[in-house]
Amino acid sequence: MAESAGPLLPTLKSIVGEANVLTAADEVAPFCIDWRERYRGSTRAVVRPGSTAEVASVVRCCAEHGVPVVPQGGNTGLCGGATPHESGDEVVISLSRLNRVRAIDAANATMTVEAGVPLAAVQDAAAKAGLLFPLSLAAEGSCLIGGNLATNAGGTAVLRYGNARDLVVGLEVVLADGRVWESLKGLRKDNTGYDLKQLFLGSEGTLGIITAAVLKLFPQPRTSATAWAGIADVAASVALLGAMRAALGDRLTGFELVSAECVALACAQFPTLSDPLPGHPWYALIQADDAAAGSPLLGEIERALAEAVAEGLAQDATIAQSQAQANALWAIREHIPDAQRRRGPNMKHDISVPVSRIPVFLDRARAALDAAFPGVRYFVFGHLGDGNLHYNLSSPAGIAPAEFIAETPRANRIVYDLVAEQGGSFSAEHGIGQMKRADLARYKPAIEVELMRRIKHALDPDSLLNPGKVLP
Amino acid sequence: MAESAGPLLPTLKSIVGEANVLTAADEVAPFCIDWRERYRGSTRAVVRPGSTAEVASVVRCCAEHGVPVVPQGGNTGLCGGATPHESGDEVVISLSRLNRVRAIDAANATMTVEAGVPLAAVQDAAAKAGLLFPLSLAAEGSCLIGGNLATNAGGTAVLRYGNARDLVVGLEVVLADGRVWESLKGLRKDNTGYDLKQLFLGSEGTLGIITAAVLKLFPQPRTSATAWAGIADVAASVALLGAMRAALGDRLTGFELVSAECVALACAQFPTLSDPLPGHPWYALIQADDAAAGSPLLGEIERALAEAVAEGLAQDATIAQSQAQANALWAIREHIPDAQRRRGPNMKHDISVPVSRIPVFLDRARAALDAAFPGVRYFVFGHLGDGNLHYNLSSPAGIAPAEFIAETPRANRIVYDLVAEQGGSFSAEHGIGQMKRADLARYKPAIEVELMRRIKHALDPDSLLNPGKVLP
Repeated sequence: MAESAGPLLPTLKSIVGEANVLTAADEVAPFCIDWRERYRGSTRAVVRPGSTAEVASVVRCCAEHGVPVVPQGGNTGLCGGATPHESGDEVVISLSRLNRVRAIDAANATMTVEAGVPLAAVQDAAAKAGLLFPLSLAAEGSCLIGGNLATNAGGTAVLRYGNARDLVVGLEVVLADGRVWESLKGLRKDNTGYDLKQLFLGSEGTLGIITAAVLKLFPQPRTSATAWAGIADVAASVALLGAMRAALGDRLTGFELVSAECVALACAQFPTLSDPLPGHPWYALIQADDAAAGSPLLGEIERALAEAVAEGLAQDATIAQSQAQANALWAIREHIPDAQRRRGPNMKHDISVPVSRIPVFLDRARAALDAAFPGVRYFVFGHLGDGNLHYNLSSPAGIAPAEFIAETPRANRIVYDLVAEQGGSFSAEHGIGQMKRADLARYKPAIEVELMRRIKHALDPDSLLNPGKVLP
Repeated sequence: MAESAGPLLPTLKSIVGEANVLTAADEVAPFCIDWRERYRGSTRAVVRPGSTAEVASVVRCCAEHGVPVVPQGGNTGLCGGATPHESGDEVVISLSRLNRVRAIDAANATMTVEAGVPLAAVQDAAAKAGLLFPLSLAAEGSCLIGGNLATNAGGTAVLRYGNARDLVVGLEVVLADGRVWESLKGLRKDNTGYDLKQLFLGSEGTLGIITAAVLKLFPQPRTSATAWAGIADVAASVALLGAMRAALGDRLTGFELVSAECVALACAQFPTLSDPLPGHPWYALIQADDAAAGSPLLGEIERALAEAVAEGLAQDATIAQSQAQANALWAIREHIPDAQRRRGPNMKHDISVPVSRIPVFLDRARAALDAAFPGVRYFVFGHLGDGNLHYNLSSPAGIAPAEFIAETPRANRIVYDLVAEQGGSFSAEHGIGQMKRADLARYKPAIEVELMRRIKHALDPDSLLNPGKVLP
């Protein structure tokens, strides 16, 4: 459709109200830069609709003007997927005002929330109803559930509960032409044709804009145990994971690997944190939960860890004796991304390989990177239980971070080639955004990219939804 | 492409071998009628490829001849999705010879299987590796895993483990033009673009032919308990479900509702079965599993059921004291479909509504159906924990089954209108096939049918994959 820029902004203002169309440079600035400050874009306007109907009208209006839109939630994404391009052609649609919990059906174990509800508020609302919404990740205080779903967020409880995609039983989506597809039935079983919601989950706003969802809720665990183990090397951590799974079955809900470097960095940047078990090269943060109130879980994890220490799978271990101690252990893990950010720019690699191949991958990657970047510093942590590591690199002493960051393409090639060699993924949970489009082109089979393009064309033929994201 | 029927069969024979192209009437007959004997079709040939490459070549050959194909697994589907049409234009591709377990990776808790492995064999292979593949349904001895995935099968453990879709981390699919999309990495986290496997799962062979999959495995439960409770009415069964969930948390893995009529029918048709608790109008079959070896689960379920009886949620209950007793309870439930089939034709309604709305749905449906079909007999059973009931109707005494079956459209309208009124689904787990295409057109919003058509066109532009199925 022909562009007619004149009436765009007034029409948008008539839809959402003058106060919700931001155009002043200082007002739009926070929406035009990503959390990691790697992407700086520009926008015609940031529009903040207050309802699904307003989102629909905004999208329709933009479509009629041929103006592309960039949906944005809490702007905590790590791949630039919510940042507008530099062109300034796009309109940013912030979902933050769609922030109602529409319904909680405890008998059906579901809740219906709008896209702009912060993840922590979703968790709280579920807890108030005596139930659990298990998605949990470092940004949970600021990220919005719509963004979690659009990026198929992972986090620390995937081992037991799956990714964000697995926690959704219904969606409401504004399509590329501004029509609304509403499917908020809240049924766990509904085999009536193609499962369209799967298209929108994880597509980073390139196929539609998620405005609401029905989420699965779970029984709250009644007994929990959190442990912290010092470990000699990564192979031992994989063996420890196996031992914990054998001892605890599916009550093992989280198994996080953290390097000593990450613990030191988090404690240095956040002095309220302290290292509970100093002196080991690696740590495992182990979370177990049981639905039974009087479960002997604590005794079992204690026994299992004592055996693991005796067998050399762990060097030492400590078990939280209170919720406060458990929170303190998790706080170390959760503060790592922020600590890295405070320290300055770094290269992030959010990778996964089959669990059994993690040790060989880490060995080979370290050998190759040491050779390519002598003195490079490794910050490795993540969800070992799912085979997902955050494999982050910082500049060697004496080399400016910016100079090192300029080497990103060369480092990525080394890391991702080795990930591919081990049958892994170059983006386990952070998605593609702008950052990994070229990687997608390189590592995805051509047939898969072609299928993605066909789907994109089927749902957004004029490429008006978050263009230049995800697809290469 | 222009049809050139002449060379089709010789070419197919050259791909899969003479013995694997069936054309004789008696040989193709079993492939041309569905399990319920509701659909009788015709076919040019039944082709039985022995590998993914052969499936690909067969599909390519058929595509070049413009000949549509009908993929078929164990032929246990309930909606005619695997039966060719009467035209005789189609080629049936049987996946039964792709029957290898390709790999089991216990450390990664995954297994890679071909489409033609029977579900029971998948379960057995997982168990031999000390792990659990939880998909479980009445046809598990004869259905093939490829069909389970193509139809997104549900079954009796959805409450805890989800539908078939939720149990898959990788797929291998032959596309409409005969190319192979292979994505068998076995990663629990892989956020690199659109989740294409979701398109093929549950699309009943209309978007691609699943030839292999990587399945998620789980820790085997170490303590199990199976109980059978007599219940006064359906409202009490919903309350009992709530009480069991409160007592057991997510150790409640199955909660099946069975009417007294269903128990009587199963026991009459299969004399080895016997009613463990005669004299109640409804029964709940309750399965609980615990990952802990020494779990006090049996005592807990006993206490919870005693309380439920005291509160009137159940009238009486019995707990299996051995695996043999547990199997005997499950055998009653699992034999209901076969017992119905032996008894003769009936109307099946595989419906779901939010759990909280089941009582009102059942009340209204019975009132409406009693009025429309005086004396109609109800066979109601299913997965109450997921809100999924099999709501089946048999002819009133004195009315021939065939005469009653002729009333299917009128009965369906009554049932599905009331399901829709309660926000439910007219096909919870059996899919659409041929049987429910018109229902899909009636009950799906037009926008959703349009999106489905766009996806179909994007992946199978010439409509050669199982045409006339699923889409209205």
